[in-house]
Amino acid sequence: MNSSFGTLFTVTTFGESHGKALGAVIDGVPAGIAIQEDFIQKELDRRKPGQSSVSTARKEADRCEILSGVFEGISTGTPIAILLRNSDQHSSDYSNIADIFRPGHADYTFHKKYGIRDYRGGGRSSGRETAARVAAGAVAKLFLKEQGITIRACTCQIGKIKAAPPYNWEEVEKNIVRTADASAAEDMILAVKNAAANKDSIGGAVYGEILNVPPGLGEAVFDKLDALLAHAFMSIGGIKAVEIGDGFAVAEKNGSENNDQMDAEGFKSNHAGGILGGMSNGNTITFRLAVKPTPSIAALQKSINISGEEVDVEIHGRHDPCLVPRIVPVVEAMAAIVIADLLLRNRAARK
Amino acid sequence: MNSSFGTLFTVTTFGESHGKALGAVIDGVPAGIAIQEDFIQKELDRRKPGQSSVSTARKEADRCEILSGVFEGISTGTPIAILLRNSDQHSSDYSNIADIFRPGHADYTFHKKYGIRDYRGGGRSSGRETAARVAAGAVAKLFLKEQGITIRACTCQIGKIKAAPPYNWEEVEKNIVRTADASAAEDMILAVKNAAANKDSIGGAVYGEILNVPPGLGEAVFDKLDALLAHAFMSIGGIKAVEIGDGFAVAEKNGSENNDQMDAEGFKSNHAGGILGGMSNGNTITFRLAVKPTPSIAALQKSINISGEEVDVEIHGRHDPCLVPRIVPVVEAMAAIVIADLLLRNRAARK
Amino acid sequence: MNSSFGTLFTVTTFGESHGKALGAVIDGVPAGIAIQEDFIQKELDRRKPGQSSVSTARKEADRCEILSGVFEGISTGTPIAILLRNSDQHSSDYSNIADIFRPGHADYTFHKKYGIRDYRGGGRSSGRETAARVAAGAVAKLFLKEQGITIRACTCQIGKIKAAPPYNWEEVEKNIVRTADASAAEDMILAVKNAAANKDSIGGAVYGEILNVPPGLGEAVFDKLDALLAHAFMSIGGIKAVEIGDGFAVAEKNGSENNDQMDAEGFKSNHAGGILGGMSNGNTITFRLAVKPTPSIAALQKSINISGEEVDVEIHGRHDPCLVPRIVPVVEAMAAIVIADLLLRNRAARK
Amino acid sequence: MNSSFGTLFTVTTFGESHGKALGAVIDGVPAGIAIQEDFIQKELDRRKPGQSSVSTARKEADRCEILSGVFEGISTGTPIAILLRNSDQHSSDYSNIADIFRPGHADYTFHKKYGIRDYRGGGRSSGRETAARVAAGAVAKLFLKEQGITIRACTCQIGKIKAAPPYNWEEVEKNIVRTADASAAEDMILAVKNAAANKDSIGGAVYGEILNVPPGLGEAVFDKLDALLAHAFMSIGGIKAVEIGDGFAVAEKNGSENNDQMDAEGFKSNHAGGILGGMSNGNTITFRLAVKPTPSIAALQKSINISGEEVDVEIHGRHDPCLVPRIVPVVEAMAAIVIADLLLRNRAARK
Repeated sequence: MNSSFGTLFTVTTFGESHGKALGAVIDGVPAGIAIQEDFIQKELDRRKPGQSSVSTARKEADRCEILSGVFEGISTGTPIAILLRNSDQHSSDYSNIADIFRPGHADYTFHKKYGIRDYRGGGRSSGRETAARVAAGAVAKLFLKEQGITIRACTCQIGKIKAAPPYNWEEVEKNIVRTADASAAEDMILAVKNAAANKDSIGGAVYGEILNVPPGLGEAVFDKLDALLAHAFMSIGGIKAVEIGDGFAVAEKNGSENNDQMDAEGFKSNHAGGILGGMSNGNTITFRLAVKPTPSIAALQKSINISGEEVDVEIHGRHDPCLVPRIVPVVEAMAAIVIADLLLRNRAARK
Repeated sequence: MNSSFGTLFTVTTFGESHGKALGAVIDGVPAGIAIQEDFIQKELDRRKPGQSSVSTARKEADRCEILSGVFEGISTGTPIAILLRNSDQHSSDYSNIADIFRPGHADYTFHKKYGIRDYRGGGRSSGRETAARVAAGAVAKLFLKEQGITIRACTCQIGKIKAAPPYNWEEVEKNIVRTADASAAEDMILAVKNAAANKDSIGGAVYGEILNVPPGLGEAVFDKLDALLAHAFMSIGGIKAVEIGDGFAVAEKNGSENNDQMDAEGFKSNHAGGILGGMSNGNTITFRLAVKPTPSIAALQKSINISGEEVDVEIHGRHDPCLVPRIVPVVEAMAAIVIADLLLRNRAARK
Repeated sequence: MNSSFGTLFTVTTFGESHGKALGAVIDGVPAGIAIQEDFIQKELDRRKPGQSSVSTARKEADRCEILSGVFEGISTGTPIAILLRNSDQHSSDYSNIADIFRPGHADYTFHKKYGIRDYRGGGRSSGRETAARVAAGAVAKLFLKEQGITIRACTCQIGKIKAAPPYNWEEVEKNIVRTADASAAEDMILAVKNAAANKDSIGGAVYGEILNVPPGLGEAVFDKLDALLAHAFMSIGGIKAVEIGDGFAVAEKNGSENNDQMDAEGFKSNHAGGILGGMSNGNTITFRLAVKPTPSIAALQKSINISGEEVDVEIHGRHDPCLVPRIVPVVEAMAAIVIADLLLRNRAARK
Repeated sequence: MNSSFGTLFTVTTFGESHGKALGAVIDGVPAGIAIQEDFIQKELDRRKPGQSSVSTARKEADRCEILSGVFEGISTGTPIAILLRNSDQHSSDYSNIADIFRPGHADYTFHKKYGIRDYRGGGRSSGRETAARVAAGAVAKLFLKEQGITIRACTCQIGKIKAAPPYNWEEVEKNIVRTADASAAEDMILAVKNAAANKDSIGGAVYGEILNVPPGLGEAVFDKLDALLAHAFMSIGGIKAVEIGDGFAVAEKNGSENNDQMDAEGFKSNHAGGILGGMSNGNTITFRLAVKPTPSIAALQKSINISGEEVDVEIHGRHDPCLVPRIVPVVEAMAAIVIADLLLRNRAARK
């Protein structure tokens, strides 16, 4: 299923950037969970456009409406549908690119796949689809919170500016680039604004943690916990790389350095990022993701149109010059969905 | 499903390291494909233990037997089951670690999940399970070959030694570390042997390419081509990171550098690694994977046993000091399974 | 997935009887199909309450709103979401049964499963959920129509009154019980009205046909065409039995009577109901379904409440005294979804 | 997936009638269950050919070999693979029908679907595939037994001879037609022998019960318990109709007769067959299935060959003149798989 994710805790999203609405149907939410609509809204607000000076000027209220699955504030076990009406659409901004394949965008591939394409704002391939994921992820977080599990992510790099550990998680929502290193925030903001001033955009990276996961989550072979996280993260547009634990650094290491030895207190280190043999080991799960620079830039670029003719493209919509700050809540949402699903699946592990 | 992968072209594996047999059931293989058993065997031989001086001394014939789904050499559309009997098992090697959690292994997490564990050779968590994937991947490759699609992977790094592009793919099977840079092979081999001599192991990285993929493969939202590749690769034990195209390098780049512009000839660069919006764009698909150092090492390590008591561990089985050379065919197999599945799913994209 | 059906053409429904809205997300609709909103509405009108004197007095406009997946009247290959707002709800009708398990209803089982229950109008277990199926089925029918495939169903029995073949399909929408035998319509209507007058309800049966299905649809083992139809039909509340072709009559037959022999023109009979070995054989697919009498009746019944105490129940909401006439379009919808899905899956049968 | 069934407790079968072997991979078996190989064998023996004078003369030892997933007699949570080698094959019996479509068989539809067909003994469409289901069902039964759940089925009709309730379940394995009415057994046997003597075959029906199922099993909408049972049963070759509880009899009933009222002791009747709103209600689950007469008959029949030419067919292999006695254990196996799967899925119903 193209638009669904998860085995027992299953999220289906629908909607295009400039269609009538986006939405998510979350099936398999266990009965009995307190579903706070204001929490879902708060998560959506963290992702919504127009929230800061490094974000797009586009405004979407992204008001969520719960249509089903909740009775007197409690999940009933039936699917929770959440609707987000689209509002601030400048579809006419896109009429001039209706026949053009924007570099770095899905225009060309959607055209090749489907032979038809809702070009307004990227249609289904727009980052706007991730609003539905955030709504679904908020429901997952409400379930996980009752299990004591927490998820947090932050911007750890924008361009060449890197956040320096140890991370101060209190800082993340206090700066507009969502970094956990307050001292790096200024430079990151500057890097984004410089890119925009140059009619350009800039990439970065997200670091995240999942805390308090009980050991044993994840299936033994294909649906390993790290495999599902990688799937979930890489399905977010713009993510080009995924590391678990020490990630690429393991390539240069010896086993004696990389193995996490144990004593009576537990693991003595966490190079593995909390995952062994595809299952949580009780340690904090850690990951890092690369985010590409926004493909929509105002600078002149070469491309072709649907007739194959060469064209010059300048993209003058309203776009984030850097995807990273607003992708942070999306990453958290996908992590929450994976963990919620594996928690439920794990209940079938023993007789 | 824990032990199955794919939507239409679906692979199910079974078997433990020291059980009676491993196997794969490949369902959804289209009818009419020539299934050469000797090609499957050849792929298995590339993965089998004991193939070189940098590999484990363990010997497994890994003779494949096709049990079903092929009639007069042609796939019938029904499931192809392939059986691999286990032979060279020194299960007694493991009796001393039956109650111990080996560092870097899945022992602890399997025990926590299932409460019972086939400790012999790692049981289901053993890398031996990947033999079944290679057999299934060989069937996928036979399908893809008829479509003109080729997959190739190589060792691009062992420890600090990196292969230098441009890669010479003719070299890969000529050196025992499977690198595409003949000039680096010596040093890589030395690095592996040094690690072993030090009772240690060493990590590395795999680079791969998928050639001649038609544009449009991959689903729009959750089952993006890169998401499925990441899932597939990360489900291989020992893989800790996945990059598509320029991968983590995008974090430092501007959009104007990273976007692949087009002219009438096609894309003018391939930073995206052949994937845009989660779908193939017709360019070569490129990826890079980090492989952790083998967790089984002879050096003394600290751990605990199932009673929580601290113990010293020295692992004296027969293990590869470096997983990379033998993981190369496994990576290719998983890539082939993903592409075969998406090729079939793509037939439903248009009316 | 509890609320989803189908492998490639996948329908997910959400919503409760007295919640804010019902809806369907139809994923995997091939791109390029003309989606007429008025056709979907027409199908919904065939199912909607309050349409005739044998139907409930409840009124639901059941206006459909397409939220996504359609651009300029054509399917884009992305999920089509259809929303149906609830309107005419007398939730207070149900407050007196909030703690009572109505006989023949899902009240008891939902309570046992989830420990919480939206009792208003049956919540998720209400027949109202099938409105979403009809909307999804209408989309499936639009796809099938372009392939030349037609689905039709009718009331073939109410109580002891049976429609006599040959059926006149022109008659079905001309009488309020939707029977294809005009001469039986009067008696059927009378049977329904008598039941209602007696504070009771009455059962019946549906007969259906799928015409012009190409041979070979259906998968070889578990997802046989007849198995999927049985699954689809039996998932409609109130259906208690499914026959394909001659159905139970085969129990008394010899092979020489039951086998459909062939000549150069094709099959000489159709006892099999168009399905052999779980696959369509090119003949008309035929089926018959038993529909139980509406469980909601005004007559006094014995039951218990959630504390286990015995109570007397009289159900005074607004209910159809016979489910059959309004279930006919639901049956057609489920058949359409099955065929659409198998048509797409069948594209993967050969290389 | 064509050859897999189940969401958490998942069965995949492979193999053709005259191929090297049949098998089942059962994934998602919870860890900790005692797996008695002799029980699996006993179940297979109930299904195996050549077991009585009303069965085919073909002999298959159907010795099962457990290849994986069991360690020291206990399930480990990893997939249990069971292998059944084929032995007594008279493939040459079939060479004369290689190009002919046998009436009532899947020959025509497989040919239309795949364009290639393993004609020996029906290949994948052979009833022989159900041996793998019985092995998998035996594993499910071992799980259910530990939960106190029992499944039993019997022949309730052959031709016009019907078993009269109340059923004596002790009798079932004492007569070769597997009926629970000892007084009807003679006549049933005679009916089968008469059919065979006339170069013909005969149909019948199976009745079954599932006892001690806790309330709440089954999912609310598409994966209702009755829907999954219908799917499972109808996927068995030769089954043409499925009834739950009173089945078709509900068509003639009033709600006041059909509703199962409750008192403090529980349900006062069981017309619903133990299922309300698609979920178990704690009552015995009851069902009845129609089985078509064996299509392979020695009498002369008309058909066509793959060139479309008319041919006369007489089928002289070794076939059961009545499928019912040997289909009984297959029906039980499918019921066990459905219940095992829903038991596990139900663990996710509440937080």
